[in-house]
Amino acid sequence: MDEFSLIEKIRKGFPIPEDITGIGDDCAIIPQHDGFETLISTDMLVEGSHFILDEISPFQLGWKSAAVNFSDIAAMGGKPEGSFLALALPSKIRNSWIDDFMDGYRTISMKYGIPLLGGDTTSSPDRLTICVTVMGKAGIGKAKRRSTAKADDLICVTGCLGDSAGGLAVVLKGYERHSDEEYLVEKHYLPEPRIEEGMILAGYEGVHAMMDISDGIGSDIRHIMEESGVGAIIDTCALPHSPQLVRMCSRHGLNVKDLSLEGGEDYELLFTVDPAVERTLEVKHYVIGRITSDSRLEWKGSDKDYMGFRHF
Amino acid sequence: MDEFSLIEKIRKGFPIPEDITGIGDDCAIIPQHDGFETLISTDMLVEGSHFILDEISPFQLGWKSAAVNFSDIAAMGGKPEGSFLALALPSKIRNSWIDDFMDGYRTISMKYGIPLLGGDTTSSPDRLTICVTVMGKAGIGKAKRRSTAKADDLICVTGCLGDSAGGLAVVLKGYERHSDEEYLVEKHYLPEPRIEEGMILAGYEGVHAMMDISDGIGSDIRHIMEESGVGAIIDTCALPHSPQLVRMCSRHGLNVKDLSLEGGEDYELLFTVDPAVERTLEVKHYVIGRITSDSRLEWKGSDKDYMGFRHF
Repeated sequence: MDEFSLIEKIRKGFPIPEDITGIGDDCAIIPQHDGFETLISTDMLVEGSHFILDEISPFQLGWKSAAVNFSDIAAMGGKPEGSFLALALPSKIRNSWIDDFMDGYRTISMKYGIPLLGGDTTSSPDRLTICVTVMGKAGIGKAKRRSTAKADDLICVTGCLGDSAGGLAVVLKGYERHSDEEYLVEKHYLPEPRIEEGMILAGYEGVHAMMDISDGIGSDIRHIMEESGVGAIIDTCALPHSPQLVRMCSRHGLNVKDLSLEGGEDYELLFTVDPAVERTLEVKHYVIGRITSDSRLEWKGSDKDYMGFRHF
Repeated sequence: MDEFSLIEKIRKGFPIPEDITGIGDDCAIIPQHDGFETLISTDMLVEGSHFILDEISPFQLGWKSAAVNFSDIAAMGGKPEGSFLALALPSKIRNSWIDDFMDGYRTISMKYGIPLLGGDTTSSPDRLTICVTVMGKAGIGKAKRRSTAKADDLICVTGCLGDSAGGLAVVLKGYERHSDEEYLVEKHYLPEPRIEEGMILAGYEGVHAMMDISDGIGSDIRHIMEESGVGAIIDTCALPHSPQLVRMCSRHGLNVKDLSLEGGEDYELLFTVDPAVERTLEVKHYVIGRITSDSRLEWKGSDKDYMGFRHF
């Protein structure tokens, strides 16, 4: 059973109240009585599956643990309001390591004004495991979902794709680190959640569906298609790439399109928008494709099919 | 650094808004604008630290993962409103195991009417890891904290102590299972959160401090003492014990007081109450001690000091 079949199976087994949006989007949406909706998302990171202790500094890991969760709130256009951190610590983890980890977690939390409100600390026999839960809010009916894309919408992203995958390639292949490589590694380890951009985009009724890019466009666009019952054409020639990624790829013979479609963790926002509204958006973005009324996925400018990153 | 020093250190490093109660209680308390407070709690369970896969059935583990988190909301007198389940699954976990786990999680969730609203599923290199987050609500100012015990309060519990520790002893020592042993093992693996009792107790202004018994009275009463700046006398002769526990202990030469003070996971509520109000409580409870104005902890009827269970 793959990750998405499992989620679908769990979703079917757990009926939820009609006014709540539950399993299957970036966050659960729980309407409150004060004109707001509470958004909640949770993410688990396990040593050996999601990170290698020797390859990521404790500061970076603390930052990234928070960032990927803040990004889930940004993905719906919400404002993150507080986080909860559960840590299972093996005995090999030293106090100074924990201090540096918390420093990274604190730095990004303070940058975006998001307090740490609680959590859990416990022991682990061997692997460090981190589970972060973030809550946020959006105005009633304002949170953007995956399920609301419409045929003829333009598909857009808020920034360059593939930098994080490029940074991971630098780490895994041990490339010599010039300034381009350093830039990409930083993009991989210290991603910035698009909170401000998400909140602005949530203000446009013509922005229909939205999510963050965590598993790569190849995987993520399929979620919007499945949840919305639509198809998509991605123009692989229109994908925005940083000059650093392009130079690194050409230096090492890597394919920039593969990195940006198969690789995940860019944490840019992926959204669909009415073409008439797209021209009025006051957020930097790139148009990379179009939603169609059938259920097919077409990669224009490429004869490959891209699947994105899969967790199982 | 032990668990509680670490939590204290994290608490100092993360300033939180004045109206929010954060790190250091069973749940964070976030005031909303509609007359309610949102309560949130998160708990991580790691294979090998918190459970042994061969010793607990998937149904029991699913039940217990939810129960211990529902209990954190009950501990403050809140009403649990939804849960979030993050699972890191190693490849040794079969689909049928996941089905049975989800069945246990679903059974207790439906028993208490608490929907599963979201979560995360991901892979783990070897150990199954579970992180559950529960949100709930209480009326503004109604949630009971650890920090509000007053001198001369009576210390009470909602039910028998030591059953869970007794059940664990049966499992670990491999005792032959008669009906008493089965009863205790079930108390260990299928605990009932005291949600109804907590909500009723939250309705009494004279109930001052409250928490659930997760690490054992020996540890838990110290949290109330430290957070409230008070002392306590526990009358170890007044501890309520089930007949099943007493019979099992006498059969196997175990000390019933040790089990009920050192062992955790009873998930009964521990609360302090004005003596005049105690007589009016419409919740079954046992008086086991008294809050004092100094900072000492006295075990009446015993010459031992009890520490409860520690996670590090």
